[in-house]
Amino acid sequence: MKALVFHGPGQSSWQDVPDPEIRDATDVIVRVEAVTICGTDLHILNGDVPDVRPGTVLGHEAVGRVVEAGSAVRGVRPGDRVLVSCISACGRCRFCREAAYGQCSGGGGWILGHLIDGTQAEYVRVPFADLSVYPLPESLDPGEAVLLADIFPTAYEVGVLNGRVRPGDTVAVVGCGPVGLAAITTAQLFSPSRIVAVDLAAIRLDAAKRLGADAIATASEAEQLVADLTGGLGADVVIEAVGTPEAFELCARMVRPGGHLANVGVHGRPAALHLEDLWSRNVTIRTGLVDTSSTPTLLRMLIDRRLPASSLVTHTFELGQMAEAYDIFGRAADTGALKVVLGEPPHDTVSVRTGGRA
Amino acid sequence: MKALVFHGPGQSSWQDVPDPEIRDATDVIVRVEAVTICGTDLHILNGDVPDVRPGTVLGHEAVGRVVEAGSAVRGVRPGDRVLVSCISACGRCRFCREAAYGQCSGGGGWILGHLIDGTQAEYVRVPFADLSVYPLPESLDPGEAVLLADIFPTAYEVGVLNGRVRPGDTVAVVGCGPVGLAAITTAQLFSPSRIVAVDLAAIRLDAAKRLGADAIATASEAEQLVADLTGGLGADVVIEAVGTPEAFELCARMVRPGGHLANVGVHGRPAALHLEDLWSRNVTIRTGLVDTSSTPTLLRMLIDRRLPASSLVTHTFELGQMAEAYDIFGRAADTGALKVVLGEPPHDTVSVRTGGRA
Repeated sequence: MKALVFHGPGQSSWQDVPDPEIRDATDVIVRVEAVTICGTDLHILNGDVPDVRPGTVLGHEAVGRVVEAGSAVRGVRPGDRVLVSCISACGRCRFCREAAYGQCSGGGGWILGHLIDGTQAEYVRVPFADLSVYPLPESLDPGEAVLLADIFPTAYEVGVLNGRVRPGDTVAVVGCGPVGLAAITTAQLFSPSRIVAVDLAAIRLDAAKRLGADAIATASEAEQLVADLTGGLGADVVIEAVGTPEAFELCARMVRPGGHLANVGVHGRPAALHLEDLWSRNVTIRTGLVDTSSTPTLLRMLIDRRLPASSLVTHTFELGQMAEAYDIFGRAADTGALKVVLGEPPHDTVSVRTGGRA
Repeated sequence: MKALVFHGPGQSSWQDVPDPEIRDATDVIVRVEAVTICGTDLHILNGDVPDVRPGTVLGHEAVGRVVEAGSAVRGVRPGDRVLVSCISACGRCRFCREAAYGQCSGGGGWILGHLIDGTQAEYVRVPFADLSVYPLPESLDPGEAVLLADIFPTAYEVGVLNGRVRPGDTVAVVGCGPVGLAAITTAQLFSPSRIVAVDLAAIRLDAAKRLGADAIATASEAEQLVADLTGGLGADVVIEAVGTPEAFELCARMVRPGGHLANVGVHGRPAALHLEDLWSRNVTIRTGLVDTSSTPTLLRMLIDRRLPASSLVTHTFELGQMAEAYDIFGRAADTGALKVVLGEPPHDTVSVRTGGRA
């Protein structure tokens, strides 16, 4: 099959690799119908995630068809269309039993495109299938559903739920990339009074407004705007969706006494935590990798047309156009790319594998 | 009357000052029967709290008798023995209505011995009396009850409740001064499996063991001990009760994925927040000034003999021995002082003021 293989910092290629095979009775093999590229994939290519060994197939988000299922798999069968989640879950460790699947200590967690081969390929092996893939109705567009593999549960759980957005709140979202925009979208589920979107790029602030932000600001304007909107008090909830010390520190300056700061950004460096200001302010700061415990809920909402996920998709490609898609996504500031989706053209017939493949 | 007056960094004196008088209809005047000294008072004397103007009477903890009550006070009457809480609460602002009295924006919060004259005096004016003093039964020892003015609710709310101590947890308490020891005492109310006490001073670690810590460690031993006790995972809850960047950063290294770090320490400098490690670990960090919303509960427990508060008292003085008490408390590393309590000898008769005083 073809797959996008990481060859070390700055190097990858869409190339022939052996087809994946069932290794454990809880595995499935999925034929990929739609994938997307995550900012984390760019971090890997930049060499920021040293866990990823050269030779690994990248990608941790997909929609596809199950073509083969291990003998212990109960929840899906060959032929089922499924969402492949960025988080795999053993279901048995202490973390899984607390629904903290992102912290799975039984061999799951974020493993696809990280510790094992991922989804940017024609086929992918998914371990622990019963808790790691989700059956999808045929009515759902794979190119929309794939946004629930990572960015929507991430924005919702790590941003909106950890930030405890409540009716009437002032919510500031710092960073309007895809995850920040998904946070703006899902924060509205809790009826905040206003959402302030903060970014440097006008094109992303435009997208934020389109998706429901009530006010927009650049980083240098944000503190004053939030102060003006809240009588000097600060935002009830601030969501960090950038991943830099500067952005985090801005968030900490904007949160009100008693407020919540939810960190969604992936960080590579420490930030200064100004405890000399914060110690007495009853602030709650939360970090988190997504658990995907909300994925079933978000899927129901997508089916019910209550989640405008597709509005984040700006570019579509065929699966073989991986290099082009990475280029467009990697130059988002120029191209205006939010989420890019790659997929095969729709099939009328489904070929189901029941045995081994060459 | 006599009172301890702050005259600027490093300078204070027990001297004659005018008696306090009712200014607002919600005030009471309390004749002080027991006071204690807080680490924060030492910070003020060190010049670390520039809000405190020279001329202010220090102290924010007391037990005493109401001698005069403003016309709007309903909850206490002259003659009642009361606990004077470190937090005054207007009861009407948005924060008070959410029981976040420490953040009171209606003129309360931590004001005694900070923004207005405090309790280290023969008499003290307490604003917003109905929500700022608590009637005490005569059976309670004033020198024990005074520990509920600040350190017990602080340790319990900002440490134990914010840290969300649960049955079976491993709890690390960094800093075994009076507040850390009160955290060790009140953490046991939630039946953790083990409490690890961390401090540099052997005398404080001994006190921690006596108060229920299961293991003790110096700062340099703590990380390894907690790792050994938790299979390398880290503590479920870590409580910072020191107030230095080093202590906070140690706490952040000891908390498990999904765990809670509750900051109780009063900080004067920023700490490094290692988001490059923490971003994916689902950690919750909370800061807070005490709200004293737990004070009624803690008082009931003290009355029921369920809270061994008096075991923190190492030294007692008469009220006029203020300079000596400060000296003993300020040299705690040498003197072994935990809480020092100053009080007047017990009175048989209570003189109640019903009008103005000279």
